[in-house]
Amino acid sequence: MSSEDDPRRQDRRAFLTRAATLTALAASAPQGRAEASVLRPKDVEPFFGAHQGGIVTPIQRHVYFAAFDLSTERPEEVTELLRAWTAAAARMTVAEPAQPLAAPLQRVGRDVSAQKSAGAYEAGAQKFQPSVLSADTADALGLSPARLTVTFGFGSTLFVQDGRDRFGLAARRPAALIDLPKFPGDQLVEEHTGGDLSVQACAEDAQVAFHAVRQLARIADNVARIRWVQTGFLPNSPGHATPRNLMGFKDGTNNPPISDPAAMAKFVWVGDEGPNWMHGGTYLIARRIRIALEHWDRMNVAFQEQTLGREKYSGAPLGRKREFDSLNLDAADASGNPLIAENAHVRLAAAASNEGARILRRPYSYNDGVNFTTERWPPWRQGMEYDAGLFFLAYQRDPRTGFIKIYERMSRFDMLNQFVTHVGGGLFACPGGVRPGQFAGQGLFEST
Amino acid sequence: MSSEDDPRRQDRRAFLTRAATLTALAASAPQGRAEASVLRPKDVEPFFGAHQGGIVTPIQRHVYFAAFDLSTERPEEVTELLRAWTAAAARMTVAEPAQPLAAPLQRVGRDVSAQKSAGAYEAGAQKFQPSVLSADTADALGLSPARLTVTFGFGSTLFVQDGRDRFGLAARRPAALIDLPKFPGDQLVEEHTGGDLSVQACAEDAQVAFHAVRQLARIADNVARIRWVQTGFLPNSPGHATPRNLMGFKDGTNNPPISDPAAMAKFVWVGDEGPNWMHGGTYLIARRIRIALEHWDRMNVAFQEQTLGREKYSGAPLGRKREFDSLNLDAADASGNPLIAENAHVRLAAAASNEGARILRRPYSYNDGVNFTTERWPPWRQGMEYDAGLFFLAYQRDPRTGFIKIYERMSRFDMLNQFVTHVGGGLFACPGGVRPGQFAGQGLFEST
Repeated sequence: MSSEDDPRRQDRRAFLTRAATLTALAASAPQGRAEASVLRPKDVEPFFGAHQGGIVTPIQRHVYFAAFDLSTERPEEVTELLRAWTAAAARMTVAEPAQPLAAPLQRVGRDVSAQKSAGAYEAGAQKFQPSVLSADTADALGLSPARLTVTFGFGSTLFVQDGRDRFGLAARRPAALIDLPKFPGDQLVEEHTGGDLSVQACAEDAQVAFHAVRQLARIADNVARIRWVQTGFLPNSPGHATPRNLMGFKDGTNNPPISDPAAMAKFVWVGDEGPNWMHGGTYLIARRIRIALEHWDRMNVAFQEQTLGREKYSGAPLGRKREFDSLNLDAADASGNPLIAENAHVRLAAAASNEGARILRRPYSYNDGVNFTTERWPPWRQGMEYDAGLFFLAYQRDPRTGFIKIYERMSRFDMLNQFVTHVGGGLFACPGGVRPGQFAGQGLFEST
Repeated sequence: MSSEDDPRRQDRRAFLTRAATLTALAASAPQGRAEASVLRPKDVEPFFGAHQGGIVTPIQRHVYFAAFDLSTERPEEVTELLRAWTAAAARMTVAEPAQPLAAPLQRVGRDVSAQKSAGAYEAGAQKFQPSVLSADTADALGLSPARLTVTFGFGSTLFVQDGRDRFGLAARRPAALIDLPKFPGDQLVEEHTGGDLSVQACAEDAQVAFHAVRQLARIADNVARIRWVQTGFLPNSPGHATPRNLMGFKDGTNNPPISDPAAMAKFVWVGDEGPNWMHGGTYLIARRIRIALEHWDRMNVAFQEQTLGREKYSGAPLGRKREFDSLNLDAADASGNPLIAENAHVRLAAAASNEGARILRRPYSYNDGVNFTTERWPPWRQGMEYDAGLFFLAYQRDPRTGFIKIYERMSRFDMLNQFVTHVGGGLFACPGGVRPGQFAGQGLFEST
């Protein structure tokens, strides 16, 4: 184990980084903390470090995820954006406003559209002043940072879009950042798919997570715009209990342990096989998976358990007793039929079924209300149905040997597929961790 | 002060009711609590009592609100539904499954559609068995009740729909349950407006709130269907700090105090002026208010403060020092202009501007992602904008002297209107509290 991977060293480094962040920020914006209580260490996740936060960070209860498209053609505005985003994200993880409140917001790029309209508009008694934007929208003022993490990623279109090398980065596109294949059953819709840049904001407070993305969107407005967003949440499970998803099953039981640096190095972190700027980075697969909850809810529990391959209430693999008992894929009943069906979800997802492939899931539920649906199953009802399901986030060292490897068979055979539809998502290369003084992904833009 | 209003008596009654609920339920479904930890009193809000929960209950962090339309023509199925809903809601407020897990789900009404399809469908290896629905979807199994409250209400269409007396209740429609007028600026869309029945589930956990409504929808499926839903959330404000809304302003400062039974009796609870079944009840106004956050965020703070009439960071009324200082609507600057503008939000909302009218707000933020918007203001951008804002819930003794009285002028003059649009909502009569052995709204259906 290298010193890099020693968890005690990581803890100590995290502590020092956090202390450094606080010290560096302390002088810059005291007024923003006018009503903030003293930061409790347990409310702060380190922003700087060998890896980005929000990946092996113990999962927070809320996520606000946003994919952005760049509207600029200038490479220097992309780096300027990442520099500004990095600074703002670091501040917000310690409950500082995105920028010091004493001055107006500093945005990236040329303020063309705003200048055009200046003075042309009166709002109430006062002139519209587009040049005086407040540094922060203040909706998180006084709140705990709530373990906020902000995780940046790069989509393939940052490198090449419609065959065009937009920013001179085409030659630097990592081999692992492939164009995702279309899987059987995929119904990905444009307005929930892809994007040049990704921002995953996780926190224990939904308002803190949204606040973070909103500030980054304001800073970016002249050079990048939101393409799609997704909120997600988890229940407040007692202790370290595995959270249940909206299907009522425990979700995440068989994740590789985030407390095991060797497992993370093997399955999550990019090593020497990747470009320098991806060392300590990882690849994010995001999938918006709508679940036909009304249909699922009409299945009896025994059938649900066969579909998943686990007991619903205990979480134990079929044929075993306890949640964390290992899968026994060879177990058979008296007739010689497998206890865990050939097309059961856990069998198809298991490392043993995929030549050892594993991914690190951060699975959130999403709940986007209801919309009109005509059912494709008995009793063929029509009406409002939940637009709810799983916002599946998974990190891996290489998507070709991670999600794609696993999902190629699952997308064809998994019994669960009759209840779920993948309706959006993306693949993003998340660069390695950020050192103080640098910005996220800086290595990508530096001459080698 | 009557003994009914004595807060100590209320506390004691709440304790006794809670103990009674727990005792009554203890025998019925032990298996549902297999992994639940012991209930902590602070996680339980009483379901039974002189008033429904979720009204003067200290506000929880999450709401899942649903409006239902009845699909039955039979009055006895409406009462059967309310009886089943009451029982399930009472159970869930103490973290029990909606019905005992040992038996299949008992649904209300005739299972016509399911019988039709029985046996016609195979899912995987097993016959589809519509008659064996699990009693609870289990997604809240093992979770704390998280202060769950479930509040029921009746829309005007329960009494009269398109001139038709559907259930023989037309003569019992309370005078206060009027058809809401259309206010200037209203853009209420059908799929977010109205409904025969309302269910407001509030909890400290988004999953618990959704779970509650989902179970009620399953029980109802043969006789009532979801018409619209709305989720909402609040930040985790430290201590008793007033939460900030997405505009970055504290929201709820000037609410009548829920700790003051006399104020609640005056402004919230229906008294002798209403029918018997509404005694101790109240009227709910729900409004889905989309806020043009991108537009708001381009205004400087001084203009935002003039619009609201309060300081952004401190929450103090303009011209005062502290958040809870009283409004001084007569204060003027050296030129004689009012410090709080004539069209400022707080002035128009103030009791002093509305002949003493006050309402009890339970204002949640909502965050439903982004959708395509063509802006109507400089810099006239087109693109994805937040579908986010305020899910405004307000309780009052009579909407004619509450919300309508106040909003008639606000809808015309409030400076805030240029940033907000009311896009959905409803008016619901929430009956008085439920006594053990009764169901919510029972008095409405009994012969007088």
